[in-house]
Amino acid sequence: MTITILGNNSALPAYERHPTAQVVSLQGGQDILLDCGEGTQTQMQRYDVRWGRINYIFISHLHGDHYFGIFGLLTTMSLLGRTTPLHLHAPAPLEGLINNMLSVASSVLCYPLIFHALPEGAALLVDEKLFSVTCFPVEHRIQCHGFVVTQKTRGRRLLPEKASSYQIPTYFYDRLKSGEDYETKTGELIKNEWVTEPGPPEKKYAYCADTIYTESFLEHITGADVIYHESTYLNDNIEKARERFHSTAGQAATLAVKAGTKQLLLGHYSSRYKELDGFKSEAAAIFANVEVTKEGDVFEI
Amino acid sequence: MTITILGNNSALPAYERHPTAQVVSLQGGQDILLDCGEGTQTQMQRYDVRWGRINYIFISHLHGDHYFGIFGLLTTMSLLGRTTPLHLHAPAPLEGLINNMLSVASSVLCYPLIFHALPEGAALLVDEKLFSVTCFPVEHRIQCHGFVVTQKTRGRRLLPEKASSYQIPTYFYDRLKSGEDYETKTGELIKNEWVTEPGPPEKKYAYCADTIYTESFLEHITGADVIYHESTYLNDNIEKARERFHSTAGQAATLAVKAGTKQLLLGHYSSRYKELDGFKSEAAAIFANVEVTKEGDVFEI
Repeated sequence: MTITILGNNSALPAYERHPTAQVVSLQGGQDILLDCGEGTQTQMQRYDVRWGRINYIFISHLHGDHYFGIFGLLTTMSLLGRTTPLHLHAPAPLEGLINNMLSVASSVLCYPLIFHALPEGAALLVDEKLFSVTCFPVEHRIQCHGFVVTQKTRGRRLLPEKASSYQIPTYFYDRLKSGEDYETKTGELIKNEWVTEPGPPEKKYAYCADTIYTESFLEHITGADVIYHESTYLNDNIEKARERFHSTAGQAATLAVKAGTKQLLLGHYSSRYKELDGFKSEAAAIFANVEVTKEGDVFEI
Repeated sequence: MTITILGNNSALPAYERHPTAQVVSLQGGQDILLDCGEGTQTQMQRYDVRWGRINYIFISHLHGDHYFGIFGLLTTMSLLGRTTPLHLHAPAPLEGLINNMLSVASSVLCYPLIFHALPEGAALLVDEKLFSVTCFPVEHRIQCHGFVVTQKTRGRRLLPEKASSYQIPTYFYDRLKSGEDYETKTGELIKNEWVTEPGPPEKKYAYCADTIYTESFLEHITGADVIYHESTYLNDNIEKARERFHSTAGQAATLAVKAGTKQLLLGHYSSRYKELDGFKSEAAAIFANVEVTKEGDVFEI
């Protein structure tokens, strides 16, 4: 499971930093796009994100720096001849904006776009065999959600030589992976742990979007392996952060400690900061394993 | 009068080329933006276009590669504290799209945005002291306009020493610049050409947007000093160009000859062309003074 940062600036463009967009790459060749600021499709090309692997897009809220790139991306996927359905989970009004955009161009998408309006509260949005995505409300100037992407365990890992030595038939292997014991025709019990070992553990990534500092969603991100939390400001602008429903690097680190995560990713930097070193030092004083993300960074979970 | 190319790729992004946007810089510190594809605001920063100098924006048509950047640009101008009115001339439905975008963000612009719906036919859109802008219909899959930007002559240039030697009072100098003769109190006529010389000539730039090859708008671009004409394809794809209401480099050059222009600028290249040398050679065989524009190019008229 990897996270690729395509953009991490806040609304006002600066220093060639792009607005928010991230790609979560999962086992099984599935990519998930989280937010889609202006220029996301160009950033995808720059950082070799494959269009065809993206079947799910999640938009946290309808401030432009988190969604103005969706129109171009949807159009481009159509120009490229996509036919696979695309699931877009976003605040309800985005559906109308997209339909209007297509209508004024006398255009239709050549693939099914399946729009899912985000609910007000927390919810399970996607539950596939290999991964799931949930949303939870954060606190911003307008309705805004964070997302938790969970890469599921694939069950136990089969030890083929062991299974074969007990003469377990291959048709039973999938049931071994899901944890079952095997009973031979003569009634002998072959314990599951003799022929399998633990599979790769479940992995969790929590993306907290744009939010004021609050512990109101702590329950949803607790236990995540990696948390992305916005840090628009440093603590010297903590009042401005509060007024604008944003957070500081220090606040993000404080929440990371409370959530018991292994790693914190920072982003959504205000254009007032050209150099980002201050974000690292402010956060690291509270939570050591912090990364000040840059465009093109790839983090493995 | 200069033209700065901010983007010149067609709809499908490729090779880090950006979609269409150009800035026309006029005498008196006025910049005009022609089209506003996704990423225009970033390109403006990259090529040092000053936000504050832009008071007029013209959008040729509502295909995304010509306007998806407008939402971000308008929002950014507001974040930067703009208070000067901004005039946006564009196809009528864009007004609704912009209002919806602001509404879903619970946002207002902090400057007056004055929307002018483009008429169906040709029209004079702006007539300021130092410049004018007209629009004319081109032929594309949806309603599409080209624009002619004219930098007016400032009248005749005063020769102060000569005017003074004839004892012409300074309050009359503006009338001398507009071409009047002066009659002294004793009835003596001071001819205008004795105390002035010709001012800088009027300059005309014709921007032909996206269009199939047609001579239907030739009358509107004839006599322009410089013409921008799209060349999505080369002649080896002349049938595809026709089907998609686009043009080839050879066709653009043919129209340039008929319009009697001094210079032809090409752009809006299909993503099928990585190298652009073929555009130059195909067009130059028909019209010698042709430029295959690149992002960041500045052309002086």
